[in-house]
Amino acid sequence: MSESPKERPLPASGDLVVIGAGVIGLAIGWRAAQRGLRPLVLDAGEPGAGATGVAAGMLAPVTEADFGEEALIELNLASARRYPDFIAELEAESGHATGFRQTGALNVAVDRDQAEELRRLHELQRELGLEARWLSAGECRALEPALATRVTGGIDAPGDHQVSPRLLAGALRAALERAGGSVRPFARARSVAVEGGRVSGVELQSGEMIAAPAVVVAAGAYAGELELPSGAGVPVRPVKGQILRLLGDRAAPLISRIVRTPEVYAVPRSDGRVVVGATVEEQGFDAAVTAGGVLELLRAAYEVLPGITELELVQASAGHRPATPDNEPVMGEGAVPGLVWATGHWRNGVLLAPLTADAIAALLDGEAPAPELRPFTPHRFAAAGVTG
Amino acid sequence: MSESPKERPLPASGDLVVIGAGVIGLAIGWRAAQRGLRPLVLDAGEPGAGATGVAAGMLAPVTEADFGEEALIELNLASARRYPDFIAELEAESGHATGFRQTGALNVAVDRDQAEELRRLHELQRELGLEARWLSAGECRALEPALATRVTGGIDAPGDHQVSPRLLAGALRAALERAGGSVRPFARARSVAVEGGRVSGVELQSGEMIAAPAVVVAAGAYAGELELPSGAGVPVRPVKGQILRLLGDRAAPLISRIVRTPEVYAVPRSDGRVVVGATVEEQGFDAAVTAGGVLELLRAAYEVLPGITELELVQASAGHRPATPDNEPVMGEGAVPGLVWATGHWRNGVLLAPLTADAIAALLDGEAPAPELRPFTPHRFAAAGVTG
Repeated sequence: MSESPKERPLPASGDLVVIGAGVIGLAIGWRAAQRGLRPLVLDAGEPGAGATGVAAGMLAPVTEADFGEEALIELNLASARRYPDFIAELEAESGHATGFRQTGALNVAVDRDQAEELRRLHELQRELGLEARWLSAGECRALEPALATRVTGGIDAPGDHQVSPRLLAGALRAALERAGGSVRPFARARSVAVEGGRVSGVELQSGEMIAAPAVVVAAGAYAGELELPSGAGVPVRPVKGQILRLLGDRAAPLISRIVRTPEVYAVPRSDGRVVVGATVEEQGFDAAVTAGGVLELLRAAYEVLPGITELELVQASAGHRPATPDNEPVMGEGAVPGLVWATGHWRNGVLLAPLTADAIAALLDGEAPAPELRPFTPHRFAAAGVTG
Repeated sequence: MSESPKERPLPASGDLVVIGAGVIGLAIGWRAAQRGLRPLVLDAGEPGAGATGVAAGMLAPVTEADFGEEALIELNLASARRYPDFIAELEAESGHATGFRQTGALNVAVDRDQAEELRRLHELQRELGLEARWLSAGECRALEPALATRVTGGIDAPGDHQVSPRLLAGALRAALERAGGSVRPFARARSVAVEGGRVSGVELQSGEMIAAPAVVVAAGAYAGELELPSGAGVPVRPVKGQILRLLGDRAAPLISRIVRTPEVYAVPRSDGRVVVGATVEEQGFDAAVTAGGVLELLRAAYEVLPGITELELVQASAGHRPATPDNEPVMGEGAVPGLVWATGHWRNGVLLAPLTADAIAALLDGEAPAPELRPFTPHRFAAAGVTG
């Protein structure tokens, strides 16, 4: 995915250590480097190979809107609005493409239950003033002729877009390195060190200590695995997702925009690939691709897009989204001064990367916490008596 | 699959060239070497990586019996009878395991149409005196508790077994080399050379000539691609099959015998893997694993064995079975003296390897053609005016 950077000496300390080189950690590192900090971004494996490497990259605040999550919907919309400028700046600074495509999304129903669910979603979208229009079955098929005849109608969301998370991670790494930051793969953090009541660095699984006055935990689902002083953690659990990569004819793509139902989504890349996802499984860190997961995805995709049977099945993979008890992200400084959280992004990590990076980098640079972070403070779990 | 043999000089000629190092070509080579011939077995790629590498290895003359194929059923049964001794001798001579398991097979129906189809099959099996007993749904589930409750009954075929084709190919290669034969990978045959009215050798795609007084075409579906003198070919076409490899708990296997319906089969290996196959597609040499093929297999397997959803999906692959116009094998000397055919084995290549190898090696050693080969002569297509 990302190109290998030139060999350079790896710093053993810096102004800032970021644990996790997924899109969240890399974006924070890039924005911090732009502000003159010297971030070192650690990853337990290859950068971008965790949840980032399995994500479909939907930027879908409108079709992913859900009841009772008004604060999160606002956050998602705010990050989506930043995406075009974020991508333009990133592609210019990195020299990498990111696969950002402003295609829109069509959310359709293939049976009566799904139609009722989408009607309720559309009501919510209208109440919130989101850009979403109800379409008849015929109008849906006029937009996407490959839709199954059983489609009864759906929601056109012309502002929901996509990016390639793998390309995005590569671009972020390149931009971060050009801005003076570093990435260190295969450096698994074991614990966060605390001295005199505030963070002093990170200890690796190898025993190596990396000193830093500030540490960002952007380790996704693995944030819950870090050793921390009592009361300093936040509760993060992995939620397994399986995803398929199909390949069709680039010259005659099956679909031209994101097509989804309440059960499945299909995201068309510009090279003829179609990403189909995703299961939602509470399975701990089990990362197996299962017969049941693949069957569920293919069956749901076939119901809405019968033509997928002709596509090549190139890859099936599984990863772990980071989820908190309320399924909302956790962003900001927690109980230990200098220890900053940026995880729990659940299904919205790629979408939320620009806003998260801007807000966390500002915080690290000494600014007051951005008001949009307030609902997502790590302190909400301590207040509720829940810690990681 | 097979272990790398020690480096040795590759012969540029021999008593015999076999085109194709699948189980058919390797078994012929082994039997010929045992008779003192010096066979050279060529393969366009890796030995055992064609149809052999994608086959499930069912040895199922009873559950695969079909109307109007009495001669072929006889041939299948005759080869199945040779299997235990063939394996014992091969494992002893090669020092390799082959995954031969005498598990039996259970052929069940999950709906009324399948039940009628199996009732007709059972009638045929009884007429032919095959070892097959009709079981009630309860009796089926007593044998295999993982069967779906929708199973209405089925046929117990305790004599249908399995072998691992990949292990078998490796064992055959080792035995053949110990007996004085050679295998040459990545040597694609372009044409068969004829001089003075009889075969004189093989020309490779590279232009290299390999002289030999006898040539066996065991190239599977690729037999039809060889350049041959006019009228010397036989018509062989590829029939695509897709197959899945699942992995379950070795200590608690989902099934203990082959479980199949008229639509799908599941073959349990001793290491916890379950091979699920296979699609039958007239697609030429297209070898793509497709969303539709995987969906078809998983859906049919789920209907009979709901527990497969828990298994890991380890691999999906596609290959090409060799089929003739009458879907029966073509074995024996054809229009050109010295040019011997051993292909067209359709779904029964692994099953038929022992008998094919014995009969073809005897022919190459100067014996009269075995009577069981007579129905499968290459001349039947010339008589019908059909050539490759």
